[in-house]
Amino acid sequence: MGEAIRVAVVGATGYGGAELVRLLSEHPLAKVVIATSERLAGTRLSDDCPWLATDLILQSFDPESLLVDFVFLAQEAGFAMLHAPNLLRKSRVVDLSADFRLKDKDVYAATYKREWASPGLEVEPVYGLPEAVDRDTIRNATLVANPGCHATNTILGLRPLVENGLLDGIPVVDSKSGVSGAGRSRKETDYLFAEMTGNFKGYAVTGHRHIPEIEQEIGVRIRFTPHLVPESRGIYTTIHAPVKLGTTLEQIKAGYPTSTFVRVVDQIPSTKQVLGSNRVDIHVALDEHTGFAVVSVVQDNLVKGAAGQAIQNMNLMAGLPEETGLPIHGVWP
Amino acid sequence: MGEAIRVAVVGATGYGGAELVRLLSEHPLAKVVIATSERLAGTRLSDDCPWLATDLILQSFDPESLLVDFVFLAQEAGFAMLHAPNLLRKSRVVDLSADFRLKDKDVYAATYKREWASPGLEVEPVYGLPEAVDRDTIRNATLVANPGCHATNTILGLRPLVENGLLDGIPVVDSKSGVSGAGRSRKETDYLFAEMTGNFKGYAVTGHRHIPEIEQEIGVRIRFTPHLVPESRGIYTTIHAPVKLGTTLEQIKAGYPTSTFVRVVDQIPSTKQVLGSNRVDIHVALDEHTGFAVVSVVQDNLVKGAAGQAIQNMNLMAGLPEETGLPIHGVWP
Amino acid sequence: MGEAIRVAVVGATGYGGAELVRLLSEHPLAKVVIATSERLAGTRLSDDCPWLATDLILQSFDPESLLVDFVFLAQEAGFAMLHAPNLLRKSRVVDLSADFRLKDKDVYAATYKREWASPGLEVEPVYGLPEAVDRDTIRNATLVANPGCHATNTILGLRPLVENGLLDGIPVVDSKSGVSGAGRSRKETDYLFAEMTGNFKGYAVTGHRHIPEIEQEIGVRIRFTPHLVPESRGIYTTIHAPVKLGTTLEQIKAGYPTSTFVRVVDQIPSTKQVLGSNRVDIHVALDEHTGFAVVSVVQDNLVKGAAGQAIQNMNLMAGLPEETGLPIHGVWP
Amino acid sequence: MGEAIRVAVVGATGYGGAELVRLLSEHPLAKVVIATSERLAGTRLSDDCPWLATDLILQSFDPESLLVDFVFLAQEAGFAMLHAPNLLRKSRVVDLSADFRLKDKDVYAATYKREWASPGLEVEPVYGLPEAVDRDTIRNATLVANPGCHATNTILGLRPLVENGLLDGIPVVDSKSGVSGAGRSRKETDYLFAEMTGNFKGYAVTGHRHIPEIEQEIGVRIRFTPHLVPESRGIYTTIHAPVKLGTTLEQIKAGYPTSTFVRVVDQIPSTKQVLGSNRVDIHVALDEHTGFAVVSVVQDNLVKGAAGQAIQNMNLMAGLPEETGLPIHGVWP
Repeated sequence: MGEAIRVAVVGATGYGGAELVRLLSEHPLAKVVIATSERLAGTRLSDDCPWLATDLILQSFDPESLLVDFVFLAQEAGFAMLHAPNLLRKSRVVDLSADFRLKDKDVYAATYKREWASPGLEVEPVYGLPEAVDRDTIRNATLVANPGCHATNTILGLRPLVENGLLDGIPVVDSKSGVSGAGRSRKETDYLFAEMTGNFKGYAVTGHRHIPEIEQEIGVRIRFTPHLVPESRGIYTTIHAPVKLGTTLEQIKAGYPTSTFVRVVDQIPSTKQVLGSNRVDIHVALDEHTGFAVVSVVQDNLVKGAAGQAIQNMNLMAGLPEETGLPIHGVWP
Repeated sequence: MGEAIRVAVVGATGYGGAELVRLLSEHPLAKVVIATSERLAGTRLSDDCPWLATDLILQSFDPESLLVDFVFLAQEAGFAMLHAPNLLRKSRVVDLSADFRLKDKDVYAATYKREWASPGLEVEPVYGLPEAVDRDTIRNATLVANPGCHATNTILGLRPLVENGLLDGIPVVDSKSGVSGAGRSRKETDYLFAEMTGNFKGYAVTGHRHIPEIEQEIGVRIRFTPHLVPESRGIYTTIHAPVKLGTTLEQIKAGYPTSTFVRVVDQIPSTKQVLGSNRVDIHVALDEHTGFAVVSVVQDNLVKGAAGQAIQNMNLMAGLPEETGLPIHGVWP
Repeated sequence: MGEAIRVAVVGATGYGGAELVRLLSEHPLAKVVIATSERLAGTRLSDDCPWLATDLILQSFDPESLLVDFVFLAQEAGFAMLHAPNLLRKSRVVDLSADFRLKDKDVYAATYKREWASPGLEVEPVYGLPEAVDRDTIRNATLVANPGCHATNTILGLRPLVENGLLDGIPVVDSKSGVSGAGRSRKETDYLFAEMTGNFKGYAVTGHRHIPEIEQEIGVRIRFTPHLVPESRGIYTTIHAPVKLGTTLEQIKAGYPTSTFVRVVDQIPSTKQVLGSNRVDIHVALDEHTGFAVVSVVQDNLVKGAAGQAIQNMNLMAGLPEETGLPIHGVWP
Repeated sequence: MGEAIRVAVVGATGYGGAELVRLLSEHPLAKVVIATSERLAGTRLSDDCPWLATDLILQSFDPESLLVDFVFLAQEAGFAMLHAPNLLRKSRVVDLSADFRLKDKDVYAATYKREWASPGLEVEPVYGLPEAVDRDTIRNATLVANPGCHATNTILGLRPLVENGLLDGIPVVDSKSGVSGAGRSRKETDYLFAEMTGNFKGYAVTGHRHIPEIEQEIGVRIRFTPHLVPESRGIYTTIHAPVKLGTTLEQIKAGYPTSTFVRVVDQIPSTKQVLGSNRVDIHVALDEHTGFAVVSVVQDNLVKGAAGQAIQNMNLMAGLPEETGLPIHGVWP
């Protein structure tokens, strides 16, 4: 290889940021040169993240000093829209938050309870779901909005039905997520081990934040409820979609193209089969009893639902094959 | 108390049977006098079930010698329909299998891949879901069919919408079950700890066996898919039901009566809050975005979904208050 | 029954306190009439603890108004020694904290980093491990110090070897605890579900706080390290004790008396077999290869290790059979 | 790279074999060309192992057709000693079973209840624990016995104390293992998810099979008991070793050299911090209260305890840097 792609990870001690550091360490052509944390600047990343056997020393975020090719922003909503314009002068940016996902700023404000403002932003953010958008748009982007985890599953599972005109009514999306989706700093009682182990619960029964993002990308209204599974990683999304009378399973399946990271599988999937992998596995069935397509989609929310997809976007932006350095097999058992 | 109700548990080393023994040991008016196991007859129940600190010695099943007031049958489908007629000469029977749940014998045959036959049966089995049927029918029954676990949740959550004429389309029932539902003798790879821990998966995406039972009891067609949760006990059922235009949340809620074991709760529930309890907690919401009622129902599949409900039925049949000896609080954390 | 024993639970929303409420609700002769929480006074206990189907309204702690027979103190160290003297004027007290466990106040200060002071205390606290001390002492006590969870297992497993003079060197006590032992308000990253699931870790490798308590009760020095198991409840303590040359397994076993709640079992135990039960199961082996007795002890840390044992003490203090109202079977699976 | 190292994995659908396939797929210089399974020959490996996104078709084991550079044997004890001599004519062999670990054949027979016989074997097997033996011996070996998982932890944790002459009595080794160690075909009730979740239990309290292997490599007698943790992967070994009077922590620590895959860490470790990694993290403490060193060692039993260490051995045998293609970071959370 020539010179490595120089990368900064902003917010390196959260689950998304630390997963970026982990995955990029296996990337043959990229290197994390800066990892930031306000809380722990000056200490070793491995002290706070003992699973990372790295010598990186955490730094404060200083946009001026970030002389890198790519910046990954792994912060809460609100951070990226403030800092991206400045960072874009020197680097290309992949943002893992929701700040640049929604085209309609009123929807953003209603969804995230915060006015949208990104003073000085001169580029159009690109929604970075490679298997659902034109990859050339991502290749040419300087600012990519990395999709939400539930949104990734839902769009990949539902969009083919919409595009092929098979949908006939409101699809029900029942999604189940591992607890790591709540992040590493969410220390409410609900996320304590003792509370969540051997437990399964719903949340945001109506009005989840990913609904507008999904509806923007697929163009139809959805019924959506997420749930918490007593597992760390993994999202399983079951889509119950009413289809037009006479639709066959073959017609449905024909709409699902297979790519390196998005596969149609014959067996009903499980979340663990993609743990640590950038794959999404999709299973499609037709319920003739009711006339619904039933689409089951699995992902690792920290890989394809966050850090892995971010790196896939970086690969495209850097002109590399999209699969470069990304795991394809799951870690099992 | 006067003389205790004498009880036999047929199939005492499976999860349902052992749970009957456990719960009945806390019942003030009943006593397990016979516990059977073909495989382990002659050995102590506590050898195979070390969580039970009991002196019971397992016996072979011998219908002639069962001089008891109540027989609980906790066996695979096919056993009860063969033996119930004989047992009913001396005892009243609560069957935890599916043998007596379906009124239409052709549906039984199609569902369980076995002809239905119960030679000599002279009584009409009663479907034992106390909160959904006329309790007097159960009180007077000699043979009660204990409902399926997914069926219990779905009927309790969906029936009020049907009865009140609010439903407007096919309801989607997305159910999530703990692994104990598979039973103690299911030793396929899928149920190994190493495979299932940190994992979530679908099964029977279409055509699950509880569908006919549910549709029989509520009278409408349903879209149903169950899933496996990495927890031992607990079922969480999310019902997404399209409701008529203009339906309000108050109208929906009004249809859900509260009883000792079936409660409408304000917080989104979790399976563990009813672990070890005979309670079902139901949460009701209205998604105005799509016009769906979203009903979330939790149970412990071995208590309200099996052994606890069986005892509740026995209580009614014996003329006792239905809650006698049954736990109401969950074991947490 | 005559009049119920009136009970107050101080600190009812923590794991120990809530477990007291749960267990006492099944007690035939006692009734929780007051449940306190400073943080949530005025709200329903069931709002914060949705597993408890109770109408109790939380109150502030007010020693003057506590007109009850028994007060259970389920608070952090430091609270009981301050308030017990006042409470003892009207009630008998069982304290679940460490405040009254250590006879040597210097040891208390060194262990808990806090001077010991209980102004006005006029009685001698009794260490409430019924199977290891003279039960009459407990029966006559007005203030009982409920033992620590690791201490309960270790004392029950090790004391017989000491008393029978079989020990020949320093015993190694390697204990493994479920995460609920950390309590409900410990919201450090370490106790988050995502961090602890599928994980096992040591803590307090040397110098754990239960060591002085154990050594006080058995009179010998021990090597002790606890660990965290990815389970909510349960402690498994493995005691590797060097025994005198020529010691036989029969000699060892002979020292372990069986009682309702402490049993010697033939099979290697597991923590779940006592989940929800007040039992301790003990397995004894002799390693002839090295001359060590290997004693394995299991408990539910919230029952025999906390709330259950507290009720067992209350039973004795109230002149009841010690097992009154306490579960003997485990909840499985 | 030049031509890839051609590899056969014999027994590819077990946990060890499948992990070899997964890890080798990320190896830049090796390629699995043959994967065998008697039971499933002719089918896709990914059908039985859906986490592996591979096109490999399973074959029957046919020693004659194995034209590869390295054969990994991932079979039950007894298989390797039968087939290795034949395989060694064409390939170098790394055996993951116990067949070639024990030098004393009588000990093998007593431990594995099977006579040791490897007709035609002409080479001396090498015990392949790179950080504990002379790496050149491994480099020159044609047949390597891959160490046991508990043995790897124990030897790495205990050997420095022995070599430096600090040990003063029998060390107690209390080891805790994830359930994957039992293998994928062990379908006893004990390994069912419902039984093992939220559970912790001992096994082989005395006489575990790894004891002779450990004692052979370190030269001292040990007290050893393993336990099962409700996690899939990971071994945590706590070594309580009495040390000579006056030994300091610095003296102890000085004996533990750090290498790429074996690190001495300052924080008490957890199993998950090395999940998916070939690392072993070791923490050392001195208990001045009793005069014991307390050494805590963590590994992923399927990586450093099996497939990863096997690849590390292959790397050495092939003249590559030992870390080639092996993960160093853990998968968290």
